[in-house]
Amino acid sequence: MIIVIQCRDQVGLVASISALMARHHYNIVSLGEHVDVAENLFFMRLEVDGNAADTQTLEQELCDILPPQALVKINPKPDKKIVVLVTKEYHCLADILVRNYFGTLGASVQCVIGNHAVLADVCRRFDVPFHHISYEGQTKQQAEGQITSLVQQSNPDYVVLAKFMRILSPAFNSLFPMRIINIHHSFLPAFVGASPYKQAFERGVKLIGATAHFVSNELDEGPIIAQQIIPVNHGYTAADMVTAGKEVETSVLAKALKLVFDDRVFVYNNKTVVIE
Amino acid sequence: MIIVIQCRDQVGLVASISALMARHHYNIVSLGEHVDVAENLFFMRLEVDGNAADTQTLEQELCDILPPQALVKINPKPDKKIVVLVTKEYHCLADILVRNYFGTLGASVQCVIGNHAVLADVCRRFDVPFHHISYEGQTKQQAEGQITSLVQQSNPDYVVLAKFMRILSPAFNSLFPMRIINIHHSFLPAFVGASPYKQAFERGVKLIGATAHFVSNELDEGPIIAQQIIPVNHGYTAADMVTAGKEVETSVLAKALKLVFDDRVFVYNNKTVVIE
Amino acid sequence: MIIVIQCRDQVGLVASISALMARHHYNIVSLGEHVDVAENLFFMRLEVDGNAADTQTLEQELCDILPPQALVKINPKPDKKIVVLVTKEYHCLADILVRNYFGTLGASVQCVIGNHAVLADVCRRFDVPFHHISYEGQTKQQAEGQITSLVQQSNPDYVVLAKFMRILSPAFNSLFPMRIINIHHSFLPAFVGASPYKQAFERGVKLIGATAHFVSNELDEGPIIAQQIIPVNHGYTAADMVTAGKEVETSVLAKALKLVFDDRVFVYNNKTVVIE
Amino acid sequence: MIIVIQCRDQVGLVASISALMARHHYNIVSLGEHVDVAENLFFMRLEVDGNAADTQTLEQELCDILPPQALVKINPKPDKKIVVLVTKEYHCLADILVRNYFGTLGASVQCVIGNHAVLADVCRRFDVPFHHISYEGQTKQQAEGQITSLVQQSNPDYVVLAKFMRILSPAFNSLFPMRIINIHHSFLPAFVGASPYKQAFERGVKLIGATAHFVSNELDEGPIIAQQIIPVNHGYTAADMVTAGKEVETSVLAKALKLVFDDRVFVYNNKTVVIE
Repeated sequence: MIIVIQCRDQVGLVASISALMARHHYNIVSLGEHVDVAENLFFMRLEVDGNAADTQTLEQELCDILPPQALVKINPKPDKKIVVLVTKEYHCLADILVRNYFGTLGASVQCVIGNHAVLADVCRRFDVPFHHISYEGQTKQQAEGQITSLVQQSNPDYVVLAKFMRILSPAFNSLFPMRIINIHHSFLPAFVGASPYKQAFERGVKLIGATAHFVSNELDEGPIIAQQIIPVNHGYTAADMVTAGKEVETSVLAKALKLVFDDRVFVYNNKTVVIE
Repeated sequence: MIIVIQCRDQVGLVASISALMARHHYNIVSLGEHVDVAENLFFMRLEVDGNAADTQTLEQELCDILPPQALVKINPKPDKKIVVLVTKEYHCLADILVRNYFGTLGASVQCVIGNHAVLADVCRRFDVPFHHISYEGQTKQQAEGQITSLVQQSNPDYVVLAKFMRILSPAFNSLFPMRIINIHHSFLPAFVGASPYKQAFERGVKLIGATAHFVSNELDEGPIIAQQIIPVNHGYTAADMVTAGKEVETSVLAKALKLVFDDRVFVYNNKTVVIE
Repeated sequence: MIIVIQCRDQVGLVASISALMARHHYNIVSLGEHVDVAENLFFMRLEVDGNAADTQTLEQELCDILPPQALVKINPKPDKKIVVLVTKEYHCLADILVRNYFGTLGASVQCVIGNHAVLADVCRRFDVPFHHISYEGQTKQQAEGQITSLVQQSNPDYVVLAKFMRILSPAFNSLFPMRIINIHHSFLPAFVGASPYKQAFERGVKLIGATAHFVSNELDEGPIIAQQIIPVNHGYTAADMVTAGKEVETSVLAKALKLVFDDRVFVYNNKTVVIE
Repeated sequence: MIIVIQCRDQVGLVASISALMARHHYNIVSLGEHVDVAENLFFMRLEVDGNAADTQTLEQELCDILPPQALVKINPKPDKKIVVLVTKEYHCLADILVRNYFGTLGASVQCVIGNHAVLADVCRRFDVPFHHISYEGQTKQQAEGQITSLVQQSNPDYVVLAKFMRILSPAFNSLFPMRIINIHHSFLPAFVGASPYKQAFERGVKLIGATAHFVSNELDEGPIIAQQIIPVNHGYTAADMVTAGKEVETSVLAKALKLVFDDRVFVYNNKTVVIE
């Protein structure tokens, strides 16, 4: 059983929590804890070797010994539901579909929504519903309305933007606060905006990277979950950098999803605590 | 104050330990814990925001609530003492001397012992005593006897083999169990023995690495503290690989020493737990 | 057009080769060259901005100016054909199938042969023929005979062992010399043989890796094409190490295949030259 | 002998150059070449196994066969001279002094100039002249005048800013065009300006890096020579990030200096070609 706690810090928190576990005869197999001293915040991920018959009661018992407004989640939805939004690039989506098909994603893909149709076939091959919502011939608001409606029908735990090249409105984002995960080409906060690979190429960078982050309302500025880089050199054209970037994007999004679906990521103050 | 605990695992350990901290009004700033479930062993590194006036009493209080034979160390010697053994290569020693001089090593170098004299001058420049104990003209046993005597005079917490190219006897090793740190060229357990770079070159490896480990009586087989690699390619001669390897050796030894001197490394069953 | 040359080294080789290119008005876009001085061997990969109408004539012209026994390949089969051998693990195969489907593999998968049937369905989903050749109920020799026959029918440029857990005989290997590519868990030459992850776990390694190599007749000892590592720590069980290892295996095999299919890998003396 | 060529590209350049080498009976041991197709520029680094008795004649012979305005350097100053500018941080300077002392820097340090005096002692220990030029009590222009005068007396090939925390004027920079090397904390072009580690901490980045670059007149925007990163996590305070950053700064500056002093770095259009 996994227990996740986020609350105001105070002396004796670990003691009270682990005493409660001991009282229930749950042995603590793994305990990750972090205190943000400056902000007086406490984060804990607890893995114990039993399962509560009644998680609501355990949750209440935890809240009773924690400071007010504590956030407690007990083994929340072992099989999380996700919706994936895509445009034309296949690399992140295919990786998700493969893991979904073989049961190693840690979540199940309810459907894929694309603003282009090119990725419909690969979804069909894996028996995953694909919805094509074009932005052509209708307003951005109308298209997003259709997307919102489809996403809400799936009632997902998380929405994954797997190279979705349209900017979603604050209204959409606010429906899924810190539950939308995006993969961003190049480094955040470097080269914010359009054509980052072109910018990187012209600057002659020796590394390119990718960042997986939660979506907030500031473009590409939400809390960072994971980052990785790969080395490049002068022999890379801008197109080669894009190709190399796709490998690192696929890898870093996979890593971020695993962390999130495994309840290892806490969010506060536009940053994350990742208890590995 | 840093508290380090290693003992048999049982339900409620974290609770009892942190309750004791709470009773003393020590707030837990950082808590790293690991349980080896198969071996039923418990490891904890605790950083609290106070200092015990009487560490012996606190240690006794901890032992009273822990299973028998628990190992407890409280902020053990913030300024650890080390002796460094070298042969001819400067890279690891110079890095240690620089950090020692600028006060960022986390330990103080009592003296350097070399079986060659070439590194005497760099020690002199940093006002660190250098002893030249040649293996020429005397038996290995005699030379090691002189080294042992010099090391014991310094009463060090750790002995660092910074590219010391002689094999120390089990007798020497047993004087400092899990307190001798070695840096080994190339990967452990790959290319064990002589000329690893030559072996690596002939195999056309694409990575070379270094391993910092505690010394046990099996050559190059003690518990691993840290490992790193760097990429190489066909353009590297065996000599280039040695040069590149020195960079990674310097870096990985520095990292391992920092972890050990910061009380983050536990040893059991010929392996380590490193709580970062 | 890509031109690949491997021959005895002598003064003036680059001059003669590039003079020939100039005479044909081929501008050299990229030139990678390596000389193994000790072995007196010369390797060159040339990318020029034109295509020879008659590659056989150009090849002859090159051989005329090179030392005897030179190996020359001109843009050899831009669309290479491969056969993939698998057992039960999906990660490397799925990555290959996805790239094959989207046309970014640099080769086309003729068929997949498995000694278990579990990966038949994923091949079927991508319209790639899957053949199940069980080793149960027949001798190893009989099973390998069936595999050989199937592979030969596809007339592949390369055979990829994508986690094929059976050892192929020297007879099979000699049919495809330096044209069989294997991905090996853990490091070569470390932990050779069975249960490398168990060995790595028990040693408490801090890195695990994977090696893609050509298959020779010494088990896991053929020329290395690419290697990568990922950091692990004491929190990884042996099973976690296997999971982490799969990510690095997938990544390093993909990289090795790209290098081979792009004609960047030369083999000699049981090692490779990789001109990137 | 190392020969470095940068010129307009045209068909047959490699042929003419290597024919000239063959005529002189210089065997080409290593040849690195790059063509920027879009800009029609040609770069070559040639290592041959002989030394020209008369480099000026060879240089003229090369210019005769190259397009107009070609830049040719023949084994330029095997022992380059450098001046190092510092402020208070020791990590980069100490690394340079150690390599300088042991003869592995590829250049010789003529003197160190600091706008604070704290690093005088470590220079004295290595018998390297240290000049303290304070910016206190005089105008920035006056201080820079003194620095300029001292640097010019040493007639250095390169000026290394090893954590020099003052901004040099365009006038100073123009005296040493593409011959001033700086190490910049954090990523370029991310977090440009003050307190990058604070910015990185507040953003919760998972990687921090360092960039070594030539100095141009736009702050932190000159051609990039080398970049590296290290992973960090939520457990790092801003101070920990600074400490970790120093390790990567030291390492990346060392790598960049080695590349530059080994004549592997070409500059054009505010970017570099690094032929490794």
